[in-house]
Amino acid sequence: MSDKQVNIHREGAGASAKAHRPIMLAIAGDSGTGKTTLTAGLVAALGRDRITSVAADDYHAYDREERKDLPFTPLNPKCNYMDIMDQHFHHLSMGQPILKPVYDHDTGALGRPEYIRPAEFVIVEGLLPLYTKRSRACFDITVYLDPPEDIRIAWKLRRDTTKRGYTEEQVRKDLEKREPESAEFIRPQRANADIVVRFSPIEERGETAEDPLSAYLLLRPTISHPDLTTILDEDVKAGMHLKLRRDEDGKPVDSVHIHSYADREDTKRVEQAIWDELGVHEPVPESLGRLDSESRDEPLALTQLILLYHLIQAQQSAGNH
Amino acid sequence: MSDKQVNIHREGAGASAKAHRPIMLAIAGDSGTGKTTLTAGLVAALGRDRITSVAADDYHAYDREERKDLPFTPLNPKCNYMDIMDQHFHHLSMGQPILKPVYDHDTGALGRPEYIRPAEFVIVEGLLPLYTKRSRACFDITVYLDPPEDIRIAWKLRRDTTKRGYTEEQVRKDLEKREPESAEFIRPQRANADIVVRFSPIEERGETAEDPLSAYLLLRPTISHPDLTTILDEDVKAGMHLKLRRDEDGKPVDSVHIHSYADREDTKRVEQAIWDELGVHEPVPESLGRLDSESRDEPLALTQLILLYHLIQAQQSAGNH
Repeated sequence: MSDKQVNIHREGAGASAKAHRPIMLAIAGDSGTGKTTLTAGLVAALGRDRITSVAADDYHAYDREERKDLPFTPLNPKCNYMDIMDQHFHHLSMGQPILKPVYDHDTGALGRPEYIRPAEFVIVEGLLPLYTKRSRACFDITVYLDPPEDIRIAWKLRRDTTKRGYTEEQVRKDLEKREPESAEFIRPQRANADIVVRFSPIEERGETAEDPLSAYLLLRPTISHPDLTTILDEDVKAGMHLKLRRDEDGKPVDSVHIHSYADREDTKRVEQAIWDELGVHEPVPESLGRLDSESRDEPLALTQLILLYHLIQAQQSAGNH
Repeated sequence: MSDKQVNIHREGAGASAKAHRPIMLAIAGDSGTGKTTLTAGLVAALGRDRITSVAADDYHAYDREERKDLPFTPLNPKCNYMDIMDQHFHHLSMGQPILKPVYDHDTGALGRPEYIRPAEFVIVEGLLPLYTKRSRACFDITVYLDPPEDIRIAWKLRRDTTKRGYTEEQVRKDLEKREPESAEFIRPQRANADIVVRFSPIEERGETAEDPLSAYLLLRPTISHPDLTTILDEDVKAGMHLKLRRDEDGKPVDSVHIHSYADREDTKRVEQAIWDELGVHEPVPESLGRLDSESRDEPLALTQLILLYHLIQAQQSAGNH
């Protein structure tokens, strides 16, 4: 380190020492995997003043018009300012503000950047937040969304044709174009997540994308999960169960299933038990499990509660180290 | 530093060790002090591939429309993202890229940010680049432009009425509104510059803003200047001289005058002697001293040459520490 670098670090040190370090959560997944829905419940539970939500898609290097002439899609790291994304996640993780770029999904345009100061919690959702080693180092909790491909296509079709003004044919063509890059850049991020979430129909019961979905959570021992061996006891095992198994790569994981038909009383008891482990005074937030409609989805609610558990638990342990 | 911060630093360390550290020059000064003219000569001399030029005005937090309702002008740190400016100067000084905001002086709008990777040299010119201690720590050479107020007003009127579409009345009203903030925020930066540059008519000779201007350079012993005691010898002292004196604050400085009527042969000899101290093979760049017109201004050329000397000298000594 040169004398100049020492100077710079010394000047910077005071500022970062005073800043609190927020708890950082990343939710990675392909387009149409439900990242926004999962995020929305956490933001509603904690409140906008306590959690800052950042879309990794804002780091697109090209607008929609420019992308037409390019040989890659937004799924490709080349189509994103990955180094700036790393830099910004690093700043946020240190409690420092950023001037975040802004990508408008409706118009496909890149606009005036936005000043963001991180709150107690920061949630980053997008296509590639877990792609680089440096960005992964910035997160306390990492999640990968992994629905079966037919579910994802159904969700993406519904959203892109209703909210983003595309035709079904355009969406299908786009999905086809993106497939090789999804395989090369998006899906490998699954291996770097503490939690892999799969919302899926239960095939053995003949369910389809139109039925209420069950949640399959894969919990890796890379972070400290609530002790589900005592919580998911005999009483509730009809609609929910915990299995010790090996993941695709042979490594040990906990696998939790929360069935769509799980009894509301059972899930409520499990939620309360997980929540009690935190030792906080507030009740379990009511805002979990909301889909577009007014109804409450139990598998979604429990998934969000586990993420919420990790956010609060990480904050508690950051204060007590 | 928490375990998480250690992780983040370790991941970041590799990247920054590989990056070269550019030489950083700041040119601070009020609106209409000739920052752009001074900068242009340096960029032309080194070439756009070797020097990255950044306008500190890009860090305005509000566009022209929003500023109409605000109780401060762009001269006020409150009107700028000072923390982001510091952060970006820090990154550039470490050889790291930034996603720089963009302020359009013609339209007064803030737009899509621009990806910048620093070249060998970075020159930052603007209203407040020397305002914070942290940003000052990022620069190898700091310059403050300090023309007499009547010269500055004449320059600002000419530029803003021809290039930025304002009327004379608007410019004068704006100057009046800005005066208290100029005194409070801009002018104190003079004390933090290694070099203070004043282009001015020689009052004792009855010169005005319309005459060719002389340069008065105040060289503080905060950086290592070329040895002018031997260069500015008896032979050239008609049009140029060096004086040891005390600055406003009583501190010792070198004061160099380059008169507008200095003989071209004399200035050429002085330029060559300064250039020779660097021991480089290239000739003195031809592009120095250009004003709007085709003519060459000797005081400007010599001022630019001294800055160029410092840029190259800093780069040489960074390689030999």
